[in-house]
Amino acid sequence: MISGDALPSWNDGATKRAILEFVARVSDDGGPDFVPVEERIAVFDNDGTLWPEQPMPTQLVFALDRVKQLAPSHPDWKGRQPFKSVLEGDLRARAAGGERGIAEILAATHAGNTSEEFTAIVERWIDSVRHPRYERPYPEVVYQPMLEVLRLMRANRFRTFIVSGGGVEFMRPWAERAYGIPPEQVIGSRARLRYEVRSGKPVLTRQPEVELVDNKAGKPVGIAQVIGRRPIAAFGNSDGDFEMLEWTTAAKGRRLGVIVHHTDAVREWAYDRDYGFAPLARGLLEAPERGWTVVDMKRDWKLVFGFQR
Amino acid sequence: MISGDALPSWNDGATKRAILEFVARVSDDGGPDFVPVEERIAVFDNDGTLWPEQPMPTQLVFALDRVKQLAPSHPDWKGRQPFKSVLEGDLRARAAGGERGIAEILAATHAGNTSEEFTAIVERWIDSVRHPRYERPYPEVVYQPMLEVLRLMRANRFRTFIVSGGGVEFMRPWAERAYGIPPEQVIGSRARLRYEVRSGKPVLTRQPEVELVDNKAGKPVGIAQVIGRRPIAAFGNSDGDFEMLEWTTAAKGRRLGVIVHHTDAVREWAYDRDYGFAPLARGLLEAPERGWTVVDMKRDWKLVFGFQR
Repeated sequence: MISGDALPSWNDGATKRAILEFVARVSDDGGPDFVPVEERIAVFDNDGTLWPEQPMPTQLVFALDRVKQLAPSHPDWKGRQPFKSVLEGDLRARAAGGERGIAEILAATHAGNTSEEFTAIVERWIDSVRHPRYERPYPEVVYQPMLEVLRLMRANRFRTFIVSGGGVEFMRPWAERAYGIPPEQVIGSRARLRYEVRSGKPVLTRQPEVELVDNKAGKPVGIAQVIGRRPIAAFGNSDGDFEMLEWTTAAKGRRLGVIVHHTDAVREWAYDRDYGFAPLARGLLEAPERGWTVVDMKRDWKLVFGFQR
Repeated sequence: MISGDALPSWNDGATKRAILEFVARVSDDGGPDFVPVEERIAVFDNDGTLWPEQPMPTQLVFALDRVKQLAPSHPDWKGRQPFKSVLEGDLRARAAGGERGIAEILAATHAGNTSEEFTAIVERWIDSVRHPRYERPYPEVVYQPMLEVLRLMRANRFRTFIVSGGGVEFMRPWAERAYGIPPEQVIGSRARLRYEVRSGKPVLTRQPEVELVDNKAGKPVGIAQVIGRRPIAAFGNSDGDFEMLEWTTAAKGRRLGVIVHHTDAVREWAYDRDYGFAPLARGLLEAPERGWTVVDMKRDWKLVFGFQR
């Protein structure tokens, strides 16, 4: 099933070979590593694995823009942290708010709407903004080598799922366009939803409460809830993906765990254990003993983005 | 796409026509009611819609059997309700325990295991017991006319999902065999899961806490969480399915809402508003004004089960 070069944006070497061999072996009917089509599930983290998470995760950019949009109806925000810093554009002070500040910003900007309203808000936003460094719409700023992996797997009858710490209703509106991944194959963190009938019209409203944090130990939980099967391949880039790779590769049979290591300060960014939003330390340390493949972005990727061709 | 008689177990009449016409129209490329393939989502309640829920819901039979299995390690149950009645086989006393008693029985019999252990328990049980009236394994005691609807829809590139108040991990082990519905297309009530590593082996353990009651207003929520699209067809049989039918049929475009009305005391059972586990009253009352199709089991179904041929 694998003809020509299925991964043209990957340099030849051990990393590329590991991915190609895995796909070839599990698809080889009659071979010792064959996996039936219905079990060919591959899961992909999003931020830092399929698209950049620098200079900050895209959903946080969205949330900060929402604070500015919503500010006129929240006059108290002018004098209240963390909103005050956001409105004044003071990034350092905002960063000092840390996780608690971010959680407060997410809660204030992600709840209250119906699911349909929120989807429309995300669609308008994603079409109106550009990535600050690459100056293109975010859905175009996606890793070309990873698009090729998604395509290779689907050509070999894998189903490809996103399993991200990001919000599921933030990703679904554009994931199909960016990655060819339909809404029902997007798993993410989620707000509690409430069904209600408003003047005769049923709606689902987003509650100010997170039902699932689809990160770390939450990733295998999200996978079990939605897919109900254990994946055979998992791709991540931070320790938020550790348990997903562990869960995937601990099962019997041929399995693939891949960590994208950001080593390319020229074409993208170089970072790992010191990245506050999503550090990578344990994954790098344990990858060899666990048999996980580490992508060295600088060395393994011929190009990072399709528009760089 | 619809050739010959796609619904041979349905008597000719308005009900059969409504289903056939709906499928034909939304699949008619170029017609006014055409729906693209990716939006062709149909949702089906399970208990009472795809298989019987009499003399009591199958998952409750399972839970009562589990009480007996687990009793040796719970000596206190002999003197404690609702377990005492279950162990003494006193159905009336048990029924008196009502919803609270049932919830207690479900909690005691459905938590504590890992997901994999629970799956194995369900598999062993479902293969070892028989339906008390039809004396066949439960996965064979399924409505033949509904199997034909599932097949007809899939032949027209619908994806068919179960959306049931039953437990998702109770249904997934046998839903593919019984209905051709794979695990990732089964949505149900779910226990909270916790990921942990036990002596080096990662497991998901079922917590004694229900995270989603996938019934009534919980059904559209479950659909939004897992599918992220609004279905275009919904089949149910009780008021537990009301909101799912409402959510499905309130959207613009051609939609199908179907209620299976149990009217056949000879071949199956005749019941509706007085069935304690899952009454049907509001659905019957409002079906005409909402344009929902009501299946009269006695009149519309040529046969109920395939084994009755």
